[in-house]
Amino acid sequence: MKHENLSMLCDFYEFTMSNGYFKNGFYKKNVYFDVFFRKVPDNGGFAIAAGLEQVVDYINNLHFDADDLDYLRSKGIFDEGFLGYLADFKFSGDIYAVPEGTPVFPNEPIMTVKAPAIEAQLIETYVLLALNHQTLIATKANRIVRAAQGRAVLEFGSRRAQGASGATIGARAAYIGGCAGTACTLTDELYGVPAGGTMAHSWVQMFDSEYDAFKTYCELYPDNPTLLVDTYNTLKSGVPNAIKVFKEVLLPKGKTKCAIRLDSGDISYLSKKARKMLDDAGLTDCTITASNSLDEGLIRDLMMQGAQVDTFGVGERLVTSSSSPVFGGVYKLVAVEDESGEIVPKIKVSENTAKITNPHFKKLYRYYDNESGKALADELCVYDEIVDDSKSHTIFDPNATWKTKTLTDFTAKELLVPVFKNGECVYELPDIKEIAAYAKAQIDLLWDEVKRFENPHAYYVDLSKKLYEIKSILLSVYGM
Amino acid sequence: MKHENLSMLCDFYEFTMSNGYFKNGFYKKNVYFDVFFRKVPDNGGFAIAAGLEQVVDYINNLHFDADDLDYLRSKGIFDEGFLGYLADFKFSGDIYAVPEGTPVFPNEPIMTVKAPAIEAQLIETYVLLALNHQTLIATKANRIVRAAQGRAVLEFGSRRAQGASGATIGARAAYIGGCAGTACTLTDELYGVPAGGTMAHSWVQMFDSEYDAFKTYCELYPDNPTLLVDTYNTLKSGVPNAIKVFKEVLLPKGKTKCAIRLDSGDISYLSKKARKMLDDAGLTDCTITASNSLDEGLIRDLMMQGAQVDTFGVGERLVTSSSSPVFGGVYKLVAVEDESGEIVPKIKVSENTAKITNPHFKKLYRYYDNESGKALADELCVYDEIVDDSKSHTIFDPNATWKTKTLTDFTAKELLVPVFKNGECVYELPDIKEIAAYAKAQIDLLWDEVKRFENPHAYYVDLSKKLYEIKSILLSVYGM
Repeated sequence: MKHENLSMLCDFYEFTMSNGYFKNGFYKKNVYFDVFFRKVPDNGGFAIAAGLEQVVDYINNLHFDADDLDYLRSKGIFDEGFLGYLADFKFSGDIYAVPEGTPVFPNEPIMTVKAPAIEAQLIETYVLLALNHQTLIATKANRIVRAAQGRAVLEFGSRRAQGASGATIGARAAYIGGCAGTACTLTDELYGVPAGGTMAHSWVQMFDSEYDAFKTYCELYPDNPTLLVDTYNTLKSGVPNAIKVFKEVLLPKGKTKCAIRLDSGDISYLSKKARKMLDDAGLTDCTITASNSLDEGLIRDLMMQGAQVDTFGVGERLVTSSSSPVFGGVYKLVAVEDESGEIVPKIKVSENTAKITNPHFKKLYRYYDNESGKALADELCVYDEIVDDSKSHTIFDPNATWKTKTLTDFTAKELLVPVFKNGECVYELPDIKEIAAYAKAQIDLLWDEVKRFENPHAYYVDLSKKLYEIKSILLSVYGM
Repeated sequence: MKHENLSMLCDFYEFTMSNGYFKNGFYKKNVYFDVFFRKVPDNGGFAIAAGLEQVVDYINNLHFDADDLDYLRSKGIFDEGFLGYLADFKFSGDIYAVPEGTPVFPNEPIMTVKAPAIEAQLIETYVLLALNHQTLIATKANRIVRAAQGRAVLEFGSRRAQGASGATIGARAAYIGGCAGTACTLTDELYGVPAGGTMAHSWVQMFDSEYDAFKTYCELYPDNPTLLVDTYNTLKSGVPNAIKVFKEVLLPKGKTKCAIRLDSGDISYLSKKARKMLDDAGLTDCTITASNSLDEGLIRDLMMQGAQVDTFGVGERLVTSSSSPVFGGVYKLVAVEDESGEIVPKIKVSENTAKITNPHFKKLYRYYDNESGKALADELCVYDEIVDDSKSHTIFDPNATWKTKTLTDFTAKELLVPVFKNGECVYELPDIKEIAAYAKAQIDLLWDEVKRFENPHAYYVDLSKKLYEIKSILLSVYGM
């Protein structure tokens, strides 16, 4: 297999622009880019930031080898000086980002890159790809996990993921979003997300009878085996055979933990019938897993109908976020340093007001109510502003400036933490289990209104007065 | 970055089952699996098979290294004999597949694997993943290319792809589906899909004025530069500045080829206005590229409205196939060899009749009308059947057996070609440009009715009489 140098996973225009920056001396000029998004997938109330670990790996490994330079040279448009610059390329800038697992909202930076123009430009595509992909899947996974109301959700979608990393990295993101595990072995080996699995229909078909298939399996794996009961007929054959085998093989060993899996038919009806058959046989410790084209909508319905499901295996609709398969994070220039080192804010205007960017090198604060512990609002400030949470603090809605709110008993937390400083990683990557626990804890600090599936409350993301004024001035200069 | 051994990209149950096959001696038993799908994405009339090259790479590299075995051993459920078997693992089976770029239809095998049980089982996830992903994107790309009616379509979606391979391999599949190129540099370097690109908004913002940004760019790249004209105001600033710079920089060099790109606003309105401004300025060779959240629906509308667009850059909605982001290919056991080497057909029944599989080791024929050259129907036959196209041949609809059709002046072509024989690759992988040309030629052989976007004609995929009878007998034995 050809080795993929992800440094080359960039849009070609990043090379044409960078070559131009090189010839114009801009490669020494520090610029600031924000990563932010405008809309939560599935019209949800929040997203869960994920993908930072992959960005860190990528930045640490950024380089262009001889093959890459030969390839670029073959295009006949790049300056030899620029290719020489690429040969020695190393990221030398600063990166700030919200930690993985943080709930995030539209129009706030989830990452800020400060670097010389070429460096900041060349990383655009991969940075967006890594954050967009994993934030999408973590966000979707959390919707599904919330719908399951405490029942375990397992990620089962590798075979229908969009590419190998869609599967492996997707399962990592699903775990950050609250899944209990994955079927993807490689994600366990590489990222420590617990993988599990038992049998496919082919196992059952491989034997002369379903009973033989189940018996062989339970003899081999007597600790909590899961039998797939829908190969022939769930209630007439699958469940009775499973009961028979559990009684013959497990109970004599003193083992009662076991499970059946339903993968077709009406999960609500079948699970209730199967539950009764299992209970009647005394197998009350036997749990039921369901896994047929599930998503948060169907799981919510099944729960309402009293389906007797203990574990949900969710495949394609989770790993592709099929009902909303794009996370639209963008990478926008927000400031440029001039010759004197002063930071000059930049804005991208648009005929569509929703697409106007928040200029400048910024801080992102989250304010928590000290009494309830809940997150109240986020505020974007200019990089040199400091919010003192020992004093009262008034925030206002940038789209309706007369709407103000004065915070008193609150705690201010800066969400963007330093990840790279002068090209060196200064951030200790948390373990995947820590990330998942942090995500869960942070989501618990959101009001239920923000977590509603349909028409959630819009969480406040405000601008400081100083930032609002800078934006207003830039709009009056560049606006239409 | 950790090295990803894709051999471990498999569902964990493939290991639990394989361990069981090992202990039961099934690893010597040849089994047959088909890859097929049940529904074309976006309710289209056909899909375009893609992903075979990645399956070949994967099979050629299949192995489990010491780290993989240590990981598996740590689970405490695998037999040491099985782990030893994995240490020496090499695929030894046969694989048949339709060539990449072939139009394919529901319920016909696009790949058949014949191999000892463990080998066939362990490759399930990656084989499906590779074929599902690329077939999805090639199919979507072709819809978009058909909507563009001869205008070039470029793939621009890397930043919103689902993972790194979603971007790189996705762009490969888009090219098979008919795209003229991609923005993804790595896809060009690795797979030879032409990559291109010019500038982002950040280039324009980096300069003191839009005019300076355009001028610098055209001086640097005077051969067919594309200027992005919507950073400030498309018609008041972007297009006039582009015209000025084209006249000042390009025309004196005798160059007339150039382009502008519209990335926001109403593409229909803006493109017509911009076209007139360019033509009035004598820049009739200047083309217009549009690239804002496009897909086949919007492109079809724009074409109907007479939008003056020469090239469409299509991003997230292509690279994720956002309106239908899952290709549901499945991997189903269709036959098992018994001790005497006889091939015993197997069937998977289901309460949902559409989910019942076509049993047995099969051939897939496509029949072409000799007069029109068009594809008439496909037929699934048992592996030892031979269709003689010098004689008339009657086919029938397996769901309505009274519907028959007798073919006379026709050519029969076997679609499944040998790819691996006894573990050795016997297939010469075509160049990506050959694949794209083959796809185009084969799609031209489909009737327009099959290519309709909405409610297309259902192409015939019939069963031979022999296969139909075998399936009927199995259904009567295993059916409900």
